[in-house]
Amino acid sequence: MPPSSGRPEVTVAEVGEFALIERLRRLVPVTGPGVVIGIGDDAAVVQVSGQVLATCDVQVEGVHFTRDLSMPPDIGWRALAVNLSDIAAMGGTPRYALVSLLLPPEIRVDVLDGVYTGLAEIASSHGVTVVGGNVSRTSGPLVIDVTLLGEARRVLTRAGARPGNGVWISGSVGKAAAGLFLLRHHEMRAPDADTLAAAYRRPVPRVAMGQALARMRTVTAMIDTSDGTARDLLHITDASGVGVRLDLDRLPLAPGMAAAARAAGRDPTAWALGGGEDYELLFTADQGFETSAAAVERAAGVPLTRIGEILRSEDGRWLARGDGSRTPLVPTGWDHFRDAAGQG
Amino acid sequence: MPPSSGRPEVTVAEVGEFALIERLRRLVPVTGPGVVIGIGDDAAVVQVSGQVLATCDVQVEGVHFTRDLSMPPDIGWRALAVNLSDIAAMGGTPRYALVSLLLPPEIRVDVLDGVYTGLAEIASSHGVTVVGGNVSRTSGPLVIDVTLLGEARRVLTRAGARPGNGVWISGSVGKAAAGLFLLRHHEMRAPDADTLAAAYRRPVPRVAMGQALARMRTVTAMIDTSDGTARDLLHITDASGVGVRLDLDRLPLAPGMAAAARAAGRDPTAWALGGGEDYELLFTADQGFETSAAAVERAAGVPLTRIGEILRSEDGRWLARGDGSRTPLVPTGWDHFRDAAGQG
Repeated sequence: MPPSSGRPEVTVAEVGEFALIERLRRLVPVTGPGVVIGIGDDAAVVQVSGQVLATCDVQVEGVHFTRDLSMPPDIGWRALAVNLSDIAAMGGTPRYALVSLLLPPEIRVDVLDGVYTGLAEIASSHGVTVVGGNVSRTSGPLVIDVTLLGEARRVLTRAGARPGNGVWISGSVGKAAAGLFLLRHHEMRAPDADTLAAAYRRPVPRVAMGQALARMRTVTAMIDTSDGTARDLLHITDASGVGVRLDLDRLPLAPGMAAAARAAGRDPTAWALGGGEDYELLFTADQGFETSAAAVERAAGVPLTRIGEILRSEDGRWLARGDGSRTPLVPTGWDHFRDAAGQG
Repeated sequence: MPPSSGRPEVTVAEVGEFALIERLRRLVPVTGPGVVIGIGDDAAVVQVSGQVLATCDVQVEGVHFTRDLSMPPDIGWRALAVNLSDIAAMGGTPRYALVSLLLPPEIRVDVLDGVYTGLAEIASSHGVTVVGGNVSRTSGPLVIDVTLLGEARRVLTRAGARPGNGVWISGSVGKAAAGLFLLRHHEMRAPDADTLAAAYRRPVPRVAMGQALARMRTVTAMIDTSDGTARDLLHITDASGVGVRLDLDRLPLAPGMAAAARAAGRDPTAWALGGGEDYELLFTADQGFETSAAAVERAAGVPLTRIGEILRSEDGRWLARGDGSRTPLVPTGWDHFRDAAGQG
């Protein structure tokens, strides 16, 4: 019997490029409002109202994920989620994705089916259409490189923070680092293990909250926490030319995170400040925001916590503790070349 | 002495992610008309007039290029050129690029400097700004994945060909296949070897010609020849639901190509029909186009050749020879999973 794309155990090398593309496009949303020309021509043609937002972020097997810790649908989910988070961090509306796949020839098509099922799930829930991409073989690891286009009237950059602004964060910190650790050490039984593992495997981008914050004139700068709370906050202060005081005791630690860190022999503070991959929104806002925070929390269903204050540049960048002591705020966290794989 | 990004023999692992991004962004055009927010925030923000065109195409070491046959600047040139060709094939104007790099940790930064220099050269000549991207390490080969955004009022797709239309091609065919062969066998001395090698290493996308053709109502469908003349023509007939007669004897063979093919023990026809990577424009036009062809050729400085005719679907897809014989037109050419590396 000749190889057929109908049998799940078939490899991509057996199916061939064109049949594979045809198979994968059936799994994701490929038509939708604004799509003039979708997958299948030399370039996609789409309509965007307002300014065009564009971002790309890649998932490399062995660097950003491993197939023993994430299921195929988790990998596809994550590949789009990290890009959705970038559009969320600008306050934009995600619209169109291009998906570039690098495939080891021996990878099975049912693994790719799984990847695309997860990608389709989060694409559908955000109204994102897959309008293009390409597949290529590689002698290296599985790679999913996603470009996401969005639209926005007003965007929030990293550059608008002003002295006196509050520093705010959505949700909780350190959950992805804790989740990754617990997935690697599944012999440890932790009360919130499933929730923490899900936070690592399937991060939830704060798209609706980002849009709500961008509409508010009191919000001055925003970023998503992909590199770690400390490093990402310093991205804001660098871009804005300001100082900052981060109040360590106010950081909203994810439930179970501190227990997992202690079980791992780590300081929970290290994960809270440097864990990364939480994909929360970290933003600055002037005092007028305080009165609107509760309404934003209710609308988005995600808590907001004030965790510090923007200072003048000459007043420095500090990590403050409840006992009144303070130390310089340094960029702990993720560096793709210097760190070992994973950041747990 | 600590590692420094100033010494060219330093590897990317020594330089680190953030210093590397800073180094590379200095080498390419990063500001320009329409760029609201460029590299350095969570997403780029750009302005586009008309419809947005989006395409992405990847270059994988060992699949699309090798470092013994292409110099680093050739690799960067090619990574953007193949995307420019996709925008050209729609008749669009290229505007903004996002560049995703996967880097083996041991790769030297001077190699990347070279790649970016070649990319900057072709970006500048087409007014393209690099507005985003990312770098990641990989355990696999060097990868450059480029997403290119463009704009257009009227686009040409693959789907508009009608029976009676002429089939046209720009420039010449088989040159990249011949060039790759001659680069691999540099002991062979061929009269046009340098020109053919350059055609492989630094393909010239037909951007101005694509725009000119898209403005003409007589042109009905267009594609660029990346997969090979036959396969790409069949993409047009598939999308348009028509038949075709391709006149083999009219194919504009690149000078020196037939001699190189014979030296390689190959049939020149195989390279002409299946060589791929020539990045010429293959298009269909009604009879009224004949009178405008010369003006388009002069304006773009590239010859146009009529190489066949669109038939009704029921009349089939044929390769016709000068002696009156004909055989079915079949998709010979590039398949990323089934073919061996390279197509020579």
